[in-house]
Amino acid sequence: MEKIKSNSYILFYFNKKMKWLTKILDGNELHTHVGVINHHDVIGKIYGSRITTNKNKYVYLLKPTIYDFIMKIQHGTQIVYPKDLGYILSRTGLESGHKVIEIGTGSGALTMFLASVVKPNGHVYTFDINQQFIDIAKKNVSRTDLDKYITFKKINLKNYTKSQLIKNADLITIDLGDPWTVITQARKMLKDSGSIVSICPTINQVEKFSLSLIENEFTDIECAENIIRTIDAREGKTRHSFYGIGHTTYLVYARKAHFT
Amino acid sequence: MEKIKSNSYILFYFNKKMKWLTKILDGNELHTHVGVINHHDVIGKIYGSRITTNKNKYVYLLKPTIYDFIMKIQHGTQIVYPKDLGYILSRTGLESGHKVIEIGTGSGALTMFLASVVKPNGHVYTFDINQQFIDIAKKNVSRTDLDKYITFKKINLKNYTKSQLIKNADLITIDLGDPWTVITQARKMLKDSGSIVSICPTINQVEKFSLSLIENEFTDIECAENIIRTIDAREGKTRHSFYGIGHTTYLVYARKAHFT
Amino acid sequence: MEKIKSNSYILFYFNKKMKWLTKILDGNELHTHVGVINHHDVIGKIYGSRITTNKNKYVYLLKPTIYDFIMKIQHGTQIVYPKDLGYILSRTGLESGHKVIEIGTGSGALTMFLASVVKPNGHVYTFDINQQFIDIAKKNVSRTDLDKYITFKKINLKNYTKSQLIKNADLITIDLGDPWTVITQARKMLKDSGSIVSICPTINQVEKFSLSLIENEFTDIECAENIIRTIDAREGKTRHSFYGIGHTTYLVYARKAHFT
Amino acid sequence: MEKIKSNSYILFYFNKKMKWLTKILDGNELHTHVGVINHHDVIGKIYGSRITTNKNKYVYLLKPTIYDFIMKIQHGTQIVYPKDLGYILSRTGLESGHKVIEIGTGSGALTMFLASVVKPNGHVYTFDINQQFIDIAKKNVSRTDLDKYITFKKINLKNYTKSQLIKNADLITIDLGDPWTVITQARKMLKDSGSIVSICPTINQVEKFSLSLIENEFTDIECAENIIRTIDAREGKTRHSFYGIGHTTYLVYARKAHFT
Repeated sequence: MEKIKSNSYILFYFNKKMKWLTKILDGNELHTHVGVINHHDVIGKIYGSRITTNKNKYVYLLKPTIYDFIMKIQHGTQIVYPKDLGYILSRTGLESGHKVIEIGTGSGALTMFLASVVKPNGHVYTFDINQQFIDIAKKNVSRTDLDKYITFKKINLKNYTKSQLIKNADLITIDLGDPWTVITQARKMLKDSGSIVSICPTINQVEKFSLSLIENEFTDIECAENIIRTIDAREGKTRHSFYGIGHTTYLVYARKAHFT
Repeated sequence: MEKIKSNSYILFYFNKKMKWLTKILDGNELHTHVGVINHHDVIGKIYGSRITTNKNKYVYLLKPTIYDFIMKIQHGTQIVYPKDLGYILSRTGLESGHKVIEIGTGSGALTMFLASVVKPNGHVYTFDINQQFIDIAKKNVSRTDLDKYITFKKINLKNYTKSQLIKNADLITIDLGDPWTVITQARKMLKDSGSIVSICPTINQVEKFSLSLIENEFTDIECAENIIRTIDAREGKTRHSFYGIGHTTYLVYARKAHFT
Repeated sequence: MEKIKSNSYILFYFNKKMKWLTKILDGNELHTHVGVINHHDVIGKIYGSRITTNKNKYVYLLKPTIYDFIMKIQHGTQIVYPKDLGYILSRTGLESGHKVIEIGTGSGALTMFLASVVKPNGHVYTFDINQQFIDIAKKNVSRTDLDKYITFKKINLKNYTKSQLIKNADLITIDLGDPWTVITQARKMLKDSGSIVSICPTINQVEKFSLSLIENEFTDIECAENIIRTIDAREGKTRHSFYGIGHTTYLVYARKAHFT
Repeated sequence: MEKIKSNSYILFYFNKKMKWLTKILDGNELHTHVGVINHHDVIGKIYGSRITTNKNKYVYLLKPTIYDFIMKIQHGTQIVYPKDLGYILSRTGLESGHKVIEIGTGSGALTMFLASVVKPNGHVYTFDINQQFIDIAKKNVSRTDLDKYITFKKINLKNYTKSQLIKNADLITIDLGDPWTVITQARKMLKDSGSIVSICPTINQVEKFSLSLIENEFTDIECAENIIRTIDAREGKTRHSFYGIGHTTYLVYARKAHFT
C-alpha cells in the first residue's frame, strides 16, 4: 500500500467540477469552496482514502494520472481534449516504442500524452516557433517524469532547410492554423506508410488540409470529429447529462503513400 | 526505405470499405471486386507504394498498424471499436509500463490494444471463462509481436478464491454482461486509486454497474458514450458523411477509493 | 408595411443570448446590459428595424413568433424545446384541423405550439392535476391569440371514470413522470391508428412506457432523441459551436392498433 | 369507428423497414417479403387492425399521416427529412394561416408539409425552374387533399423581374444549390421581420449563405444541424440503435431586418 509522501502530486477530488491537482508540501493549505485542507493531514494517508474538510465535506486523495495532468493544463493556448487524444492514438495505431514528431507544441498536453505511450524506447520531438509556448510546455511536462522522452525544438519548420531533419517518424501530429504549409517537410520526416494527424478547429482547415494531403501523395484520408456524451446514472432516473463538451476540434488523418 | 518481404503482413487499401489485411506469401493471389493482386508482385515494393490490379485499379500497400489488426478482428463476439479503445486509454491515463487486467478476453482486440501501449515493461493479464474465446484471441494476437506482454487465463473470476490473485493493477477493464458480479474481485486486484472501466452495451448495465461502484467504494464515476462523425472533405462541397458508426457501447469509468 | 403599435408584443433582439420579449407600453423603459430602450421610441417603427440604445448598441425590433413566446416561458416546470416540439409534430404528422389531447399541461409551451398548428378548425384539450400549472399556462397562452383553440381541464386522468371522455383524438401527448398510468385512458380517447407521444426525460421512462405500449396494443413504436448542433459560420473559420443544447428529453412515439 | 374503404390510402406496416403506402383497389394484391396481401381483405376493416399474410405474418393497417406520405416520396431529388421539416417549422414559428413561399419545389415533400400546417387559410407558393420536378411534386401532392393550398409556378426567380411578385410572406424556404442568388428576390417577397430558411447540404453553402444574409440585412442568423438518434427499448436491454440516420442537411435560419 503506497502512502502519500511530501513533494508528490495529488488530485484532491470533490466532484467532477471541483478537483485540484497540486504538489503536497507540508505546511501548505488548500482553500476551496468546500473547505480548507491541510497538506500535513494528507501525508501518510493511502491513495484513494478521503479526508474531511473543515466544512465537513469529503475530499478524495487520488494519485493523478496523465489524464489529470492534461486536464489541469489550461494556459493561454487551446488544449487538446482527452477524447481527441484517445482517438488520435487509436486511429493512428500509436504504440510504445514509436518515434513521434509534433509540429506545434502548444501547451504540451499532446506532447505529454504521446510521451506517456511511446516511452521508454520511443521518443517525441516537438517543434514550435514560439519560445514562450515551449517554456510553458516544458514546465507542464516537468510535473511528470516524461522529460527524458521529449525533445523540444524552437524552429520554424516552414523555412527549415537543414539537411538533418529527423527521419522515419511513425507518426506526425500537426497543431497549426495553417497545417498545409508544413506538409512537404512533414512528408520528408515520416516513414513510408506512416501516419499523419492534423488538429483542425475549423471546417475550412479540414477541407484545405485534405486537399493538400491528396496533392502530396497521402492516402486513407479520414476527417472526423469525436463527441463525448456523458450519462448521469441514477437508480431509475438515468439520462444523458444536461451539459456536455461541445465542439473542440476536427481531426484529419492520413498515411503517406507513393503515387509513382 | 523498408521493403515488403514475404511472410510480413500487409494492408491492401483500395478505399475505406475495401481493404484487406493479409500475410504476403509468394505464389498467393488476392481476389477482390477491384481485381486480382499477385503477392509476388508486392514483394520488394516499398510500403506506401501502389500497384495496379488486373482491372486497372490502384491498390495501396500499407504497413498495418494495431488499428488495422483490431479492425480486422470480427470473430463471433462483439468487438470494441477504436473510438472506444482510445477513450478508455485517455480517460484512464494508461501509460507504457502499466499493469492491466482485462476481465472478459473476447476477441482479443482490447487485449492487443492495451499490450501495444503498456509494452515493454508493462503487462496485460486477460481472463475469460470460455476457452474458445481465449483460443481465438490468442490466434488474433499471434499475428502481432505482442504475445510476450499478454498472459491468458481461463478462469471464472466470480468463483475464484485463490489467494494469489494478481495485485496492484493500474487498470482493470471489464467486458462482461454482468460486470457487477466481479466487482469485489476486481477491487482486490486494483491498486489504490487505480482505474476501472466497464464496457456496457446497454443503459441498464450502465445504471446497475454505477450503483455497484458506489456500494463498493469507488469514486470519480463517469458514464459516457463516444460518437465519431466522419466528414467528407471535397473542394467546395464539404459535409458530414451520410453514413457513420452508430451505437457501439457505453463506458463506465471509476477510481478505487476507501470510504473509511 | 406594418408599424409597431402600443400594446403589441415585441422581441428586442441584441444577440442569441440577449433578447427580450415584452409588451410595448408607452412610457415604459427596458433596462439591459447593452443600454436602455424607451418604449416610446419604438412605437411607429417598422418591424425589423433597429434602434440605438443609450450605450450606442443596435437592438432589432422583431415581431415575436410562437418560437419566441415558447422560449420565453421558463416557469417552475421543465419546458419542451423547439427541437422536440418540431419532431413531435413532424413524426406524428400533425396537421391543421386535428384534435389533440395533451396530458400534463406544464408551462403551456407544447399547448401553445399545438394550438398554433391545429387552429382554426382543430382544438387542443389539455389536462393537468395541478391548478397552479394550469393558471401559469393560461397566463402564458393569453399573450397570444390562441385561447379559443385550447380547453384547459383540471382532472386527474388516472382516476377519471367519467363516461364522456373526449373521443377520436388524432394525437395524444403525455408529459408526466409516470406516463404508463394513463395509457388505458389515453387509448380510449385516441382514434383508431392515431398517434401518441410521450415526453420522457429518463431512459427508464422510455423503457417502461415502451413496454406498456406493446401491452396496450400499440404499434410502430419509436423511441428517439433529437440533438441540435449549431454552427458558427464565419468567413474561412466555420465550425460547430463550442456550446450547445445538451440533453432535454427522449420521445416515445406509437400508433394505436388492434391486436384482435 | 372509421372503416377502410376502396380508393383510400393505407399504410401496410410490418416493421420500421418494411412498410408500404398504397391505395386500396379491390382486386389488387400487394406482394412483399412477408407474404401476399389481398386488398379485398382489407376493405371494411377498421384502421389499426392487423391481418395475416399467406406467410402467417401480421401486417397492420394504418391510416397514413403526412409523415408517411413524405417518407414515401423518393423520386430523383433529395428529400427533406421529417427531423429537418419539424425543426424548420418550430424554429420559424410557422402557424396555420401563414403565407409561405418555397423556392425549389424538389419532390414536393416540404411543400406538402408546409401546406398541411398553413391550411385552410394560409397558402404555399412553390417555385421551380424545372417543369419535371413540378410535375413529380404535383403528382405526390395529389395523393393528399392539399392541392388547393398550393400554387406551383415554373419560374427562374434569379431572372424574375415581374413587378407583381408575391408579397408579405411569413416564411420563405430555399432549397437550391446556390441559395445566395435568390436572396434579393426573397427579401422583396418577405414581410418585415419575417423568417427565411435555407436547406444547405454542404458546410460551404452554410458559410456563403450566412455571409450573404448579413450583407442583405438579415438578423438572428442561426446555422444548425438536427440529429435524430433512435433508441431500442427492450426490457433490461435498452440502448441506442446500432444504425441511425446520418447527415441529411444543415439549415440556415434568419429574419429580415432593416439596417437603416
